[in-house]
Amino acid sequence: MKSAIVLLSGGLDSTTLLFFAKVKGFKVHCLIFDYQQRHKKEIRQAVSIARHARCPFEVVKITLPWRGSALLDEKIPLPEGRSLKKISIREIPATYVPARNIIFLSFAVSYAEAIGARTVFIGANAIDYSGYPDCRPEFYRAYREVLRKGLKSGVEGKTIKIETPFIYRTKAQIIQLGLALKVPYHLTWSCYQGGRRPCGRCDSCLLRAKGFAEMGLKDPNTKIQ
Amino acid sequence: MKSAIVLLSGGLDSTTLLFFAKVKGFKVHCLIFDYQQRHKKEIRQAVSIARHARCPFEVVKITLPWRGSALLDEKIPLPEGRSLKKISIREIPATYVPARNIIFLSFAVSYAEAIGARTVFIGANAIDYSGYPDCRPEFYRAYREVLRKGLKSGVEGKTIKIETPFIYRTKAQIIQLGLALKVPYHLTWSCYQGGRRPCGRCDSCLLRAKGFAEMGLKDPNTKIQ
Repeated sequence: MKSAIVLLSGGLDSTTLLFFAKVKGFKVHCLIFDYQQRHKKEIRQAVSIARHARCPFEVVKITLPWRGSALLDEKIPLPEGRSLKKISIREIPATYVPARNIIFLSFAVSYAEAIGARTVFIGANAIDYSGYPDCRPEFYRAYREVLRKGLKSGVEGKTIKIETPFIYRTKAQIIQLGLALKVPYHLTWSCYQGGRRPCGRCDSCLLRAKGFAEMGLKDPNTKIQ
Repeated sequence: MKSAIVLLSGGLDSTTLLFFAKVKGFKVHCLIFDYQQRHKKEIRQAVSIARHARCPFEVVKITLPWRGSALLDEKIPLPEGRSLKKISIREIPATYVPARNIIFLSFAVSYAEAIGARTVFIGANAIDYSGYPDCRPEFYRAYREVLRKGLKSGVEGKTIKIETPFIYRTKAQIIQLGLALKVPYHLTWSCYQGGRRPCGRCDSCLLRAKGFAEMGLKDPNTKIQ
């Protein structure tokens, strides 16, 4: 059975991705990051989801001695109530974390190479998104070349693939797929605030609400304490 | 004064690089990694070197839950007494750490972006080296494209530069430069074993010895306890 790494945040996209990778026949190893994010709650949910899916998982702790993001620094207010219809790459929000996906992928490919997995799945999305540059297809195209040149597996002609199957899907399309795959959305957590209940105002809450609304469905996760 | 990040291992190349960056007029911020390497001693030396150079520094701890390298797993023997004259990229040694420079650079560019530095220096060398793919110029060319596409600074046309000034220099040439820059080679540590004294047999010791021999000099660091 071929192995794959799934970058699992505990949110809606990456959780759907985990079940997508499973149904594609992969033995999935989940990689979860504790990067001192404001919404630490997502880590606990990611662990619950990996267990629910009966997948092995690793939680990697990353302590960045620098800040530079509203997700790492509670003194910086989270943007609220943004219109996310026409996101421009020229208006990157304060929740951007410098090099976050570059860091996450670097660990994922190290993990993949160490265990002999040839595929890394990441739930990046460039449609219903906040405008982060590291969620766009051009970033992933560039990153794939790095893996061909900078890894042993690449030099040996066994390059690790970075798969971004959701990059052009709307949030509603991701939910539609997830419902067919019986994804436990009640376990997922998206809100950046990480409070007792989702704030309903941050980008992440708004994008999630948009997806469920477009599907004509009620979000099943608001009960997470 | 323009700021730069220098990836500082505490070895000969990165220490020379630190002084090179300083003489080029940069305010240098040193980035040191504790990645559970067998030769932890280099971390202490890197800290001493940063202090000697009066540069601010950060030590980032990276705990990889996987192994896959003789530098991370003491059960895997270190290659000893290798001939390093004709290194082929098809014979990557057991000391290769999956994605090491990919991980290190990802933190360095995050640091750079968070503090507004526009340059990252890394002492990669593709001449007197062990044959690691992530020390070759083609890897750095690919990585630069990632920074243009995946970082806020890249999208805004202020791409962070990755500088590899030693990539085509011999170890002797690096030492020659370092002597002119008054690099404190007595503080540097190269040996992978990390014992009381350098083993003299690992790739790192052999490459270092080759450099000093070609310069007709005695290595000043064998006294480090």
